[in-house]
Amino acid sequence: MPVLTNIGQLATCPADNAQSDAGLIAGAALAFDEEKITWAGPQEELPADLLGEQAHDCEGRLVIPGLVDCHTHLCFGGWRGDEFAMRIEGRSYQDIAAAGGGIASTVKATRETSAEALRERAAGFLDAMLALGVTTVECKSGYGLNEEAELKQLQVYRDLAANHVVELVPTFLGAHIIPPEHRDDRKAYVDLLCETLIPRIAKEGLAEFCDAFVEDNAYTIEEGERILGTASAHGLGIKLHADQLSAGGGAQLAAKHGAVSAEHLEYIDDEGIAALAQAGTVAVSLPLASMYLNERYLPARKLMDAGVGVAVATDFNPGSSPSYHLPLAMLQACINQAMTPQETLMGATTIAARAVGRDNRIGSLVAGYQADIAIIDTPDINQWMYHFQANACHRVIKRGQWV
Amino acid sequence: MPVLTNIGQLATCPADNAQSDAGLIAGAALAFDEEKITWAGPQEELPADLLGEQAHDCEGRLVIPGLVDCHTHLCFGGWRGDEFAMRIEGRSYQDIAAAGGGIASTVKATRETSAEALRERAAGFLDAMLALGVTTVECKSGYGLNEEAELKQLQVYRDLAANHVVELVPTFLGAHIIPPEHRDDRKAYVDLLCETLIPRIAKEGLAEFCDAFVEDNAYTIEEGERILGTASAHGLGIKLHADQLSAGGGAQLAAKHGAVSAEHLEYIDDEGIAALAQAGTVAVSLPLASMYLNERYLPARKLMDAGVGVAVATDFNPGSSPSYHLPLAMLQACINQAMTPQETLMGATTIAARAVGRDNRIGSLVAGYQADIAIIDTPDINQWMYHFQANACHRVIKRGQWV
Repeated sequence: MPVLTNIGQLATCPADNAQSDAGLIAGAALAFDEEKITWAGPQEELPADLLGEQAHDCEGRLVIPGLVDCHTHLCFGGWRGDEFAMRIEGRSYQDIAAAGGGIASTVKATRETSAEALRERAAGFLDAMLALGVTTVECKSGYGLNEEAELKQLQVYRDLAANHVVELVPTFLGAHIIPPEHRDDRKAYVDLLCETLIPRIAKEGLAEFCDAFVEDNAYTIEEGERILGTASAHGLGIKLHADQLSAGGGAQLAAKHGAVSAEHLEYIDDEGIAALAQAGTVAVSLPLASMYLNERYLPARKLMDAGVGVAVATDFNPGSSPSYHLPLAMLQACINQAMTPQETLMGATTIAARAVGRDNRIGSLVAGYQADIAIIDTPDINQWMYHFQANACHRVIKRGQWV
Repeated sequence: MPVLTNIGQLATCPADNAQSDAGLIAGAALAFDEEKITWAGPQEELPADLLGEQAHDCEGRLVIPGLVDCHTHLCFGGWRGDEFAMRIEGRSYQDIAAAGGGIASTVKATRETSAEALRERAAGFLDAMLALGVTTVECKSGYGLNEEAELKQLQVYRDLAANHVVELVPTFLGAHIIPPEHRDDRKAYVDLLCETLIPRIAKEGLAEFCDAFVEDNAYTIEEGERILGTASAHGLGIKLHADQLSAGGGAQLAAKHGAVSAEHLEYIDDEGIAALAQAGTVAVSLPLASMYLNERYLPARKLMDAGVGVAVATDFNPGSSPSYHLPLAMLQACINQAMTPQETLMGATTIAARAVGRDNRIGSLVAGYQADIAIIDTPDINQWMYHFQANACHRVIKRGQWV
């Protein structure tokens, strides 16, 4: 049985720990079989019969659960790097959109790109994420915004899930923005979502979750009610983009529908926080979006103090967060969300797993959990978060297999 | 003669360009001999006799001058990762210092670490920097703060300069903080700097520049005057840490002494800006220090508008900026200093080279300059800055040699 020995610090990240307590063990060992963790603890307590020929000396390194990036828009066509430069030069978002830029340009590019090309590109992103220690990725549709292109994105995720080492959690985000061609007839698009797409996607198992972007410039609370209600009725789990630009009741809507997670929440208010706490909904923080947009970060301390679990994810997308570097998102959570390294690691492991409904199987290094493991080339999590390196990840194990 | 062909975008970064103009050429080629650039321009204009057997197809990638990190504290003992976590938990700097932490702990660790161990560690940092495309690094002493340990740091730099691919620019920063054992007798330490260390270091060629930290909690303007004046008299170039915590006349002091650079400048005022502009002194911005400390960034736009060149460097050190990731510093300069990708790239190439007195030899890809080249795996600089990757650098050439 494979055993990791000489672990400088093991972060077990148990699902029932307080977020502030990553279950750290100094001088640890960890055993796993073909799929699952079988033993984790102080090396001096390692049962002698486990220490066979398959011992791997971690040379004092940090060992953590494989990271879970619980909010990405992984599949998209095109990039928008020139807009980044234009924004710095003082061009407004309106200007850029008028010149054919903004999210509409990504929708256009995604519609025009073949499934094969989208899949190849997303697979490249997953390779890079895996190298950083990320072993599970939630991935949203939402750049298709019509029947064909939304299904194309979800089919890309299905193909990748079958063929890539990284575990995927597909989410249907047909309600991302109002499609350009439906600006004067929103209801027809919401009808398409509720009467055609959600039933079909649920039936074919193309997504596990349904998400929607409830905001002044996207979907109304009422539209959100209808979309989430329909998704629930068809057996999809619920996630929600909420309170990114204003406290508009999004958090309460998420709580009302028993969402596993509410995401963004930069402007969540006290009522929204209370609603999430009551419902046990995870707050997914997206520090790289705040960083790139130079905007406010979500109030992580207030959320955690209220008993809400705060996950940390990248929001990888070609507009507001064009990076899949989860450890950089974690560093920004430490600096800008006043989350300790332990809280941050919990937020990118077991709490992120809770945000995708899998915290009973992944995100923790305790016996019985799937053996998703990252060995980080640093002695402990404080040092890892503090000394930002291009990529501090040394080795990755996914479902018991060395990658 | 080696020729790079099929360059998607070539950033030539000429020393006499405006900072906003990185001298971009689409569809370019570049030739170099054993040491220097011999030709750079549009590929269609490449002289046919240059296109021999040593052509390297860049496959549409971005090609830039090797990056210059013009402000680091490369050589130090220990780390301070636990302080990072303590600060997030709300412990004050005073608390941490009282518990034996802060810069004094780095001084203690640096004094206690052998030259050999310091050299091995710094060489590892240089390896990582080189992989990111950094080919020249300024490196300061200042964690020894006594005769033996300051000379030890500078000797480490001398050894590394002789043996590492990365080109080093050693700077004497004996006047970093007041050494703990001299708190009640500052004058004796300044005497040591001016009467013993500066003359010896200049005579032995152990440093090219002398730097000092002029701030309320470090050295006074009067002490700075004496130290810089002594250094100038001994033929050392002048750099200055100034206006990091308050506008205390540091920029003016730098200008008065004809400093090549004034560094930090988060609190520089209009008089300081005018003084730097008048003197032609480069303002060295250190965005990672601002990021890690969650403090203000220097007013890059005001400086550039006043005609001051703004360099971008990491400030790599174990306290306020524990990362040597210059592309991350550049991204933060774009986001938080409103510097365009072109301005940022100029700030990490030719203007950084000016800040170490070498802009007539490195930092530009024009004929006659040293062939320090980085090939970046991205089509253009907007895309490079915007899509943050762990390490986008594909290949590096230093002084005409592939690394």
